[in-house]
Amino acid sequence: MKILISNDDGIDSTGIAALAKELKKIGDVTVIAPRTEQSAVGHAITMKFPLRITEYSKNGDFFGYAIDGTPADCIKIGIRNIMKTPPDIVVSGINCGSNTAINIIYSGTVSAAREAAIMDVPAIAVSVTNHDPKHYEYAAKFSADLTKLVVQHKLKTGTLLNVNVPDLPEEEIAGVLLTKQGKSKWDDIYEERKDPYGKEYYWLTGNLIQADNKLETDQFAVKQNYVSVTPIHFDLTDYETYDTMKEWHLENMSKQKS
Amino acid sequence: MKILISNDDGIDSTGIAALAKELKKIGDVTVIAPRTEQSAVGHAITMKFPLRITEYSKNGDFFGYAIDGTPADCIKIGIRNIMKTPPDIVVSGINCGSNTAINIIYSGTVSAAREAAIMDVPAIAVSVTNHDPKHYEYAAKFSADLTKLVVQHKLKTGTLLNVNVPDLPEEEIAGVLLTKQGKSKWDDIYEERKDPYGKEYYWLTGNLIQADNKLETDQFAVKQNYVSVTPIHFDLTDYETYDTMKEWHLENMSKQKS
Repeated sequence: MKILISNDDGIDSTGIAALAKELKKIGDVTVIAPRTEQSAVGHAITMKFPLRITEYSKNGDFFGYAIDGTPADCIKIGIRNIMKTPPDIVVSGINCGSNTAINIIYSGTVSAAREAAIMDVPAIAVSVTNHDPKHYEYAAKFSADLTKLVVQHKLKTGTLLNVNVPDLPEEEIAGVLLTKQGKSKWDDIYEERKDPYGKEYYWLTGNLIQADNKLETDQFAVKQNYVSVTPIHFDLTDYETYDTMKEWHLENMSKQKS
Repeated sequence: MKILISNDDGIDSTGIAALAKELKKIGDVTVIAPRTEQSAVGHAITMKFPLRITEYSKNGDFFGYAIDGTPADCIKIGIRNIMKTPPDIVVSGINCGSNTAINIIYSGTVSAAREAAIMDVPAIAVSVTNHDPKHYEYAAKFSADLTKLVVQHKLKTGTLLNVNVPDLPEEEIAGVLLTKQGKSKWDDIYEERKDPYGKEYYWLTGNLIQADNKLETDQFAVKQNYVSVTPIHFDLTDYETYDTMKEWHLENMSKQKS
């Protein structure tokens, strides 16, 4: 099994090392990841600047390829120009901090997996629920187990699995749940500060407003110490609104031509 | 009616000027846009650096606020720290180049509108189908008409309208269609070049593979000279796969605790 690993925390992060170590037990691993941290870049891609590919070593051994771009860039150039043929699966992570509810929208980790899904490659994004995780081991083992399941069940093209793992030792994990994206959102706050020259600048902080209270949502499941697995896709059409908007009669907005 | 205008091409772009001019006829307009071009940044937000707010003038008159961040940053800080109270609607654009099919995922224009939807503010993203558009006038007029419709119909919270307008004079527009996100995707190519020092660098190009042939898709509608209006949302759950994945029995992946 050919496995491509990427992330958004950068190729030198602890999470990607833990993931690569575990996945090497079940397949032929290629690591292609951003040279520097790319958290919260969403699904950005680099078009106005060129990319560079650098070989990256760890403790004297070749570890993977560093790209001076975004997570989505890594998947695109990784599959097209480094691997040349698509891998059997892409696994992105292990991210520091959960990517549940609204955070899925901002996440670079998820966008690497989503870019793979766009390229018709099955993909998993994996995050641990702590910004300084203590327990990558279980998340890495779980990623390997889920990788085997995804390949076995032939996950539908265009879908990726977004996985969030509580930052706990294995014996404290409550179980594994299939979930939906939660509705919790950030109450953003921009802290106003002054620079040494007296000019204002603004720094984003905020609090996640917990709007989920059912185990079938990613956000609540991880709060209750479950591993959450959410299938997500990139068809953003709101079909419910599509149906109700038929009554808006948009066709009347311009003179129809015969 | 309070209208917040943003974009991803930057506050000095022709498209945002055309949009502001037309929307000022129907409401109280505030322009808050990136200081520099932010195309293809997706839904990136700035967390590792602070933001600055600069007043921006055009021909000696105050035009709006420039933010040295992403489109999504502009909406967040614009509503929280500049406007203080949410506008009645956010309109993002007018973008140079269509944001149909897979391009919705990469688009900064769409992400500004999506950030508004996340903040429970109705929103429209508007693009013209040409990288150097000749006909902003009709797109601007259409945006004003649609803005009135959105407020009148009370568009559902969490949904935004993604609008694509052919780059044509009004009399050549075939009509207006309610559409779904198309399935056309890019066949990416990274051009390999050498820098003056002999080192390789790679530049993203590619061709959009036309996979849409029905007027009910955004991509095909604009190809046929129709204005396309697509309702999109930020619930990324793939409900169809969610249902089929119940048979995977993920609960068996870890020992359940009693």
